[in-house]
Amino acid sequence: MTKAQLVDLIHKKKSFLCIGLDTDIKKIPQHLLGSEDPVFEFNREIIDATIDLTVAYKPNLAFYESRGVKGLISLEKTMQYLDKFRDEVFTIADAKRGDIGNTSEMYARLFFDKSASAMDFDAVTVAPYMGEDSVKPFLSWNGKWVILLALTSNTGADDFQMLDTEGKKMFEHVLEVSRHWGSEENMMYVVGATRAEMLRQIREIVPGHFLLIPGVGAQGGSLKEVVRYGINKSIGLLVNSSRAIIYASKEKDFAERARIEAAHVRDEMKDLLIEYHFC
Amino acid sequence: MTKAQLVDLIHKKKSFLCIGLDTDIKKIPQHLLGSEDPVFEFNREIIDATIDLTVAYKPNLAFYESRGVKGLISLEKTMQYLDKFRDEVFTIADAKRGDIGNTSEMYARLFFDKSASAMDFDAVTVAPYMGEDSVKPFLSWNGKWVILLALTSNTGADDFQMLDTEGKKMFEHVLEVSRHWGSEENMMYVVGATRAEMLRQIREIVPGHFLLIPGVGAQGGSLKEVVRYGINKSIGLLVNSSRAIIYASKEKDFAERARIEAAHVRDEMKDLLIEYHFC
Repeated sequence: MTKAQLVDLIHKKKSFLCIGLDTDIKKIPQHLLGSEDPVFEFNREIIDATIDLTVAYKPNLAFYESRGVKGLISLEKTMQYLDKFRDEVFTIADAKRGDIGNTSEMYARLFFDKSASAMDFDAVTVAPYMGEDSVKPFLSWNGKWVILLALTSNTGADDFQMLDTEGKKMFEHVLEVSRHWGSEENMMYVVGATRAEMLRQIREIVPGHFLLIPGVGAQGGSLKEVVRYGINKSIGLLVNSSRAIIYASKEKDFAERARIEAAHVRDEMKDLLIEYHFC
Repeated sequence: MTKAQLVDLIHKKKSFLCIGLDTDIKKIPQHLLGSEDPVFEFNREIIDATIDLTVAYKPNLAFYESRGVKGLISLEKTMQYLDKFRDEVFTIADAKRGDIGNTSEMYARLFFDKSASAMDFDAVTVAPYMGEDSVKPFLSWNGKWVILLALTSNTGADDFQMLDTEGKKMFEHVLEVSRHWGSEENMMYVVGATRAEMLRQIREIVPGHFLLIPGVGAQGGSLKEVVRYGINKSIGLLVNSSRAIIYASKEKDFAERARIEAAHVRDEMKDLLIEYHFC
């Protein structure tokens, strides 16, 4: 999906919500456990209930891989199901990968090459520590995106990302160096919402890039603050919510309740888009 | 496997070789392609031909995951086969993972919990960028190891790992901060052999930890230099070789030729162990 198509989707749905499909078999409603593939069944119902309210879905690979082959099958089925909605929603493999060049190429096949793995995501999250040649192989795929970790929302972000590094914070260095690896058309950055005020500095370095913002909701960030400091002229924000939406209920009404939660966030987003004159 | 058991293995085999099972279906001998699971068949023959010469096997997850479910099945079968040799060899999932706490816990299950994924590695490689809470979940597994990326062997290592950060290089900062997260009994570090002279500085920060050294052979590092600067009183080195061994031949004699290459490295290691009075 191109940047223009994504911006279009945001305008159409009046939403810049990304729903994290962090589906843990231990947390899904009991009545699903009898079905052939409970995790896929859960995802399918969540997708059907929220597809008009969200512009992106982001399964975190760990939740699938922790169940080995069975988990990967659930993920492949989810992605095949999402194929039906190819033009209606952006898909992100939250994988935080990164390895030497020829190895990152292999990971790119997992996420981007349907003939290899039966999956075809629009984007993959990548860790920056190993530098340019670990990221570039993902950028050589036409129409695909890298979402690079810059400033994450966990407490451990202070350990290295916030270090002073030749006059700037480490995460600022990551932004400055990496923005030339690709373009605003194939790179985004992960920036935790728990530090919304830092979006101001971040926007000075990457004014035009899309930012993927985790940590609104369960992790305590404020949507209003995120928009205040992070919005740009093409909106440029995807705000993720996982648990608050997908686990809104653990009963049979889980999909319905997920829809109510997602609609609540979408309404807040719509109001903000109006406030900032985007609709 | 404990540190004492690993050191014991090194003494017994007179080898600190780790063989990287980076098995690419496009590079294995043609005659295997007719078998039910060519990648597993290749690994099985490599293992049988080298098990007495190597103290560790290190499959890189990317090579398996790039083939989706099929690839993960090949890896699970390889790990089940290696179960037969549980006390004879150390196993490393080269995965370079790292995510927020509850998500890293999920990855730990993939690599360490046989009931979840049919795999039971001794160790997993982890990326440090997200800090302590992204690494700790892997350290809470008894008898399991984290091998944290410190200084990698690719050119991109210069982008961030070599930055001056509050008076020291970023990778030195990673070593200093992280060595307290676990102990010498459950943490190792990845240090590229292409910068063997840096092992001297590294040994000042982590004198007692094991180091996993990629980049000897195909990537150009010298074993002699690695030992000169990196060996410690319990040897403390695992030196990886992948392509030079497993792809020594692309014909029917591939396992035999892999054994010859591995024996060549082992002999060199044995001579160095004698030179440094370990046998």
